[in-house]
Amino acid sequence: MRLSRYFLPTSKEIPSEATIPSHQLMLRAGMIAQAGSGIYTWLPLGLRVLKKIEEIVRQEQNRFGAQEVLMPTIQPMDLWKESGRYGCYGEELLAFTDRHNREMCYSPTNEEMITDVFRRYVKSYKDLPISLYQIQWKFRDEIRPRFGVMRGREFLMKDNYSFDLDKESAIRSYQNMYQCYLRTFNRMGLVAIPVKADPGAIGGNMSQEFNIIAETGENELYYHKDIETMRTQSLDSIDLEKLQGLYAASGEMHDPATCPIHEKNLVVKRGIEVGHIFYFGTKYTRSLNALVNGPDGSLVPAEMGSYGIGVSRLVAAAIEANFDDRGIIWPESIAPYKVGLILAKSKDGVAIKLANDIYAQLQENNIEVLYDDRNASTGYKFADMDLIGLPWQVIVGKNAASGYVELKNRKSGELYQIHSEELLGKL
Amino acid sequence: MRLSRYFLPTSKEIPSEATIPSHQLMLRAGMIAQAGSGIYTWLPLGLRVLKKIEEIVRQEQNRFGAQEVLMPTIQPMDLWKESGRYGCYGEELLAFTDRHNREMCYSPTNEEMITDVFRRYVKSYKDLPISLYQIQWKFRDEIRPRFGVMRGREFLMKDNYSFDLDKESAIRSYQNMYQCYLRTFNRMGLVAIPVKADPGAIGGNMSQEFNIIAETGENELYYHKDIETMRTQSLDSIDLEKLQGLYAASGEMHDPATCPIHEKNLVVKRGIEVGHIFYFGTKYTRSLNALVNGPDGSLVPAEMGSYGIGVSRLVAAAIEANFDDRGIIWPESIAPYKVGLILAKSKDGVAIKLANDIYAQLQENNIEVLYDDRNASTGYKFADMDLIGLPWQVIVGKNAASGYVELKNRKSGELYQIHSEELLGKL
Repeated sequence: MRLSRYFLPTSKEIPSEATIPSHQLMLRAGMIAQAGSGIYTWLPLGLRVLKKIEEIVRQEQNRFGAQEVLMPTIQPMDLWKESGRYGCYGEELLAFTDRHNREMCYSPTNEEMITDVFRRYVKSYKDLPISLYQIQWKFRDEIRPRFGVMRGREFLMKDNYSFDLDKESAIRSYQNMYQCYLRTFNRMGLVAIPVKADPGAIGGNMSQEFNIIAETGENELYYHKDIETMRTQSLDSIDLEKLQGLYAASGEMHDPATCPIHEKNLVVKRGIEVGHIFYFGTKYTRSLNALVNGPDGSLVPAEMGSYGIGVSRLVAAAIEANFDDRGIIWPESIAPYKVGLILAKSKDGVAIKLANDIYAQLQENNIEVLYDDRNASTGYKFADMDLIGLPWQVIVGKNAASGYVELKNRKSGELYQIHSEELLGKL
Repeated sequence: MRLSRYFLPTSKEIPSEATIPSHQLMLRAGMIAQAGSGIYTWLPLGLRVLKKIEEIVRQEQNRFGAQEVLMPTIQPMDLWKESGRYGCYGEELLAFTDRHNREMCYSPTNEEMITDVFRRYVKSYKDLPISLYQIQWKFRDEIRPRFGVMRGREFLMKDNYSFDLDKESAIRSYQNMYQCYLRTFNRMGLVAIPVKADPGAIGGNMSQEFNIIAETGENELYYHKDIETMRTQSLDSIDLEKLQGLYAASGEMHDPATCPIHEKNLVVKRGIEVGHIFYFGTKYTRSLNALVNGPDGSLVPAEMGSYGIGVSRLVAAAIEANFDDRGIIWPESIAPYKVGLILAKSKDGVAIKLANDIYAQLQENNIEVLYDDRNASTGYKFADMDLIGLPWQVIVGKNAASGYVELKNRKSGELYQIHSEELLGKL
């Protein structure tokens, strides 16, 4: 993409409404535009990141055997009355009546709705286990929306629901998603710490939250120091049983008086919740009468779990974990483009030709490149490119005549003089 | 995908609530499940088709220079007061107040919102033309939702908005989308007829609707008979000026008394509206004060057009144009899978091995295949496969020992005896 034609409204000014780095940087980098309190429009650069994160989530859900569906954002409240959760969400639930005076709501979560699909079509243990997920917008009418898309009102979420015949199998489904989540966040270049959590309005007594460590995180985390070491290892070599055996709790679940590990082994950090998994057994299948025939012919309520990932929040969380004073530093797998190509001498015919050639070559080789071909000062271009944080910068300027360019790694700041013919090999 | 593990709740029974073929077939083929009046959950098979259509729309939007953004589904009503459209949509607009008593609505269309983004960031004629689109869920609170996703309340739409400096350039943007739409529908294997239309609540005096011909269509179309011939030609050879010069009008725009062409040249058919393009000039940019600096330094309101495609409706429209008494007949580009592989003798070891081998081979070659490996009767499998309408069926049964299979074309019904080694070449 040529920047001269790209809708990328960057800004040097720190927006006064934004107090945390990710919110400031997403506004400054032209990734989002506020459309209302806690409601955002995703501009082209931001949407690219959102879609990359969404696609990694989707691929890993599929890899772990889940099937994608898509539920509507608006749902009738009848099911909530049936399940007994009517009223549980309080004012956070965006509820209203339609023109026929039917009570409706904007889905904040979909346990009822998916259980309704399940009970209509799945009748036998032979069709179990089954794991269905969607990636869909949700709405929670937060009393004080803040921190941009980190705690917005309308947000994109992956929600998965598993149905099993018995508890043993349901726990396997839960563990399957636990592994899937470790892998999902790893692929995004993020280290997520799983901690024991409060199930809240979803229910059940077994639940874990996945948190990205960041100073601006709203959660307090207490966990064994070995978890941090283990979470930086390659996934294949992790002893999952050991990882799950180590103490790890969110603030509301941690009690210093009963904490089983010694203080010297306890890490206390702040984290951003990006995933949450729940096992809640038959809470919804009993109330909604979602029964299946067991092998012995008896009718039993299916065992359920649900599993969320905050897809839009992950964009902000990834920034909180990866930025410096000049801007964002994207992990390569979720970067909007891999390479930022900068034409540093925009009036120089030789440099223009070389930059155009490199642009064409990168495109031919399917390397995602954003080409700053604008008629602007070099300093302005450098600042913009650092701000939007693409992993690699290719600068075409003073040595263009000899075919040399500069290759800069945004994260390390390392700068290489390199001949344009060697560029592809390096990238 | 193995059908034994796939969530595909097919049914022989014609649902009583469904009166048109696409609605009946989408329910029977396990593509959708009703979640409320005019509100549907997309099950795995249906979602695959929806995503294929969405992706073709996206690729063609990008090809024609549009940039993707994503606006929220919920928006504040303030902008509608500013534009003067507050109240225009009547009860079809799903409006409500949030917990702070602010008036909000579920977007039925986004002219105001995109103009707000535009006026905040685009200040100069140098940044024009610009074309922004999104693919997002909309809600229109229809008084009588009917025909399944054809006239549902929550529906997926592609909406594009163009901004230009002057009328001449705006007409070029309009024509650009006109071409883009012809190409988009062609790629889906559908013939869309563009007719002059009533701009309605969007406004302006230049608008065309794209219709798929179908007996169940809600629109009456009147057009010159040559249009039908031209629309079956390859796109590259079409004379666009000639096509646009031929008489074509929707029911509300057609008046027999003033119709300029002879009755013998007039075709009267029914159609399903799947796209609508509008040029409305400065209607929104004036009221919302979206001004840009012209080359002469003067401030002028940008010229606008908007362009919609009914993405979820297209799933149903494609079926209305392609079905028989046994089920759906998908055009290949939007089929959920290209091949349905049927193990016709599910107890025969040789047949099982051959079917498994073919399944592995098709997957390795990235041919999308749904493998009916279920332990069910052959008749049941044949009926299901005809119902879901994949373009090709590969039947592994009685001649498996000699390596022969049957290859069936769902549309033509032609059946070939073919050696399994020749299958890949044929597909």
